Amino acid sequence: MSLQVAVVVGNPKPLSRTRRVAELLVEKLLEPGSYALEVIDLADHTDQIFAWPSDKMAAMNARVAESDLVVFASPTYKATYTGLLKAFLDRYPANGLAGVTAIPVHTGADFSHAMGPTYNLAPLLVELGATVPGRGFYLALSQMDQVADVVDAAVAEYAANLSRSAAIAAHTRTATPASA
Amino acid sequence: MSLQVAVVVGNPKPLSRTRRVAELLVEKLLEPGSYALEVIDLADHTDQIFAWPSDKMAAMNARVAESDLVVFASPTYKATYTGLLKAFLDRYPANGLAGVTAIPVHTGADFSHAMGPTYNLAPLLVELGATVPGRGFYLALSQMDQVADVVDAAVAEYAANLSRSAAIAAHTRTATPASA
Amino acid sequence: MSLQVAVVVGNPKPLSRTRRVAELLVEKLLEPGSYALEVIDLADHTDQIFAWPSDKMAAMNARVAESDLVVFASPTYKATYTGLLKAFLDRYPANGLAGVTAIPVHTGADFSHAMGPTYNLAPLLVELGATVPGRGFYLALSQMDQVADVVDAAVAEYAANLSRSAAIAAHTRTATPASA
Amino acid sequence: MSLQVAVVVGNPKPLSRTRRVAELLVEKLLEPGSYALEVIDLADHTDQIFAWPSDKMAAMNARVAESDLVVFASPTYKATYTGLLKAFLDRYPANGLAGVTAIPVHTGADFSHAMGPTYNLAPLLVELGATVPGRGFYLALSQMDQVADVVDAAVAEYAANLSRSAAIAAHTRTATPASA
Repeated sequence: MSLQVAVVVGNPKPLSRTRRVAELLVEKLLEPGSYALEVIDLADHTDQIFAWPSDKMAAMNARVAESDLVVFASPTYKATYTGLLKAFLDRYPANGLAGVTAIPVHTGADFSHAMGPTYNLAPLLVELGATVPGRGFYLALSQMDQVADVVDAAVAEYAANLSRSAAIAAHTRTATPASA
Repeated sequence: MSLQVAVVVGNPKPLSRTRRVAELLVEKLLEPGSYALEVIDLADHTDQIFAWPSDKMAAMNARVAESDLVVFASPTYKATYTGLLKAFLDRYPANGLAGVTAIPVHTGADFSHAMGPTYNLAPLLVELGATVPGRGFYLALSQMDQVADVVDAAVAEYAANLSRSAAIAAHTRTATPASA
Repeated sequence: MSLQVAVVVGNPKPLSRTRRVAELLVEKLLEPGSYALEVIDLADHTDQIFAWPSDKMAAMNARVAESDLVVFASPTYKATYTGLLKAFLDRYPANGLAGVTAIPVHTGADFSHAMGPTYNLAPLLVELGATVPGRGFYLALSQMDQVADVVDAAVAEYAANLSRSAAIAAHTRTATPASA
Repeated sequence: MSLQVAVVVGNPKPLSRTRRVAELLVEKLLEPGSYALEVIDLADHTDQIFAWPSDKMAAMNARVAESDLVVFASPTYKATYTGLLKAFLDRYPANGLAGVTAIPVHTGADFSHAMGPTYNLAPLLVELGATVPGRGFYLALSQMDQVADVVDAAVAEYAANLSRSAAIAAHTRTATPASA
């Protein structure tokens, strides 16, 4: 069985470095061949982001909500996620990301906004019902030449956290026995 | 193998309803017999909470950090966690709860502070490196006579989220094969 | 000298109850005749909100930044401000609302998101350099028939806070003597 | 008439650099001779901070709440204010700092937690009813040798914001005419 994975990019400009960082994070976290990836660059959908209803947006929202893992990535605007990313998340009903494991990612000019993914984006994803497996990921642009090392360190933390959580999953009252 | 579980209660008064709610959440989430539980009522340790160093506090912090699952429970003071709970968490170094799955729990007089566990306590636990498996749990005192139902609904969400996360854990690059 | 006042409404639907509440707050806070009011209903500008550059948006942002008092009003989406309101604020540079006194206003279905204007919108306005004169204003829709009383209580707090702050202003090192 | 000013320091160790920074901020913001200052170093009161009731703590809380201006200063622990500072603020009832103008101050090792005073301490003070006159103040320890310049820049912003707010105060419906 293949994992369903999505990257949602909240930069109003397409093909951003933020997008590349998010894609790299997925690539380094998961085994090659174990997942199908959809990348949603919200810059391509600004004309419909406030349209209601919108079949196109609804389908996109649904695919993200059905994913196992989603990286939500945004440049840092005013020390937090962009309005564009929020507008996409606003389209969900309460608890609309239940079941999704979500990794909050921000990029920024320097380290002064490094708390953004942990203190601003993480609680928004938790509010939507998602699981957040550890600290948000932040990359300062000055780190672009060492991005591989920074991402390696982060994915090691996420992988270890997910592995530890899996041990609990096996013992919840509603858990299906592994032999089922 | 048995899970190590802790409940940390941040009410300055001991044996609070907040504590009972947190204990009930563990009892309803996990299979009987699958875990060892330690309950830490911080009201019993206010004399040492600001002592530095303190062997007693250090041992307590270590046992919590080594747990698989921890419920951090607090009454709502000023719409957020108590200073007592924060003082306990302040004793950890950066990323000091890595590997722990943490459930944020608040109780409050009414629903006006229902966002507290999601928007204030959840990001603090994420900052410490913990995994937060969905929305924070809030109980208004007016719900005390239906607490079992409210907790049942919440643990169903946590169990489902943990189960979904476990599927990802099996496909991380650093995952140990299940047969190992 | 007349005050320059603005109301910025972040509801993707125009002419909302949120807008009427914000307008009422201004009307009850300030002396009739003492101010000029501009109401910006962002629902009218979704086609340009992500355009960059945009002369129309730039002029609107500038008029808000030059205002003495601005009420930023939003329905509660995911327990916080809308993406539309954030997209408007994203257009400012760092500290872009310095000098503005800003009142955060949210409306919501019930009281479970009552913390939103204080814990989510207030810090965003402070990050932009604005002064926030007390708790955020929240109105549950069930209060619509008593909205006048709820607003009266809030404006009494804001007026008292502004009056107390003015006493400090008179004694800062850079203060201009009142006789100047 | 003299202003009543307080500095409340949340460092569990007394006589901290955090305290000196907060005192410097008051000194540079206000005209010499225009105010009476009380400094409360919470490190001196850890034995009573959780005592309830406590005449000593109640008197201290009351003096702070009656102040015109209060600087709340804390080192950054887990990217936010200390449990000790929160424990002091927990002793207030709802809206307990109404009428106070409060400046949130954090010190930290580097810039990665620079958002703390704005995104974590500011909303807590606003929740208590205080006015926050602009961005929180953050000082990285690497800036200690230029602390005077950093504080000068911040107090210029606070003074300008307070002055602008004062103009509004003069036109609220409940304002007392200046000639009264």
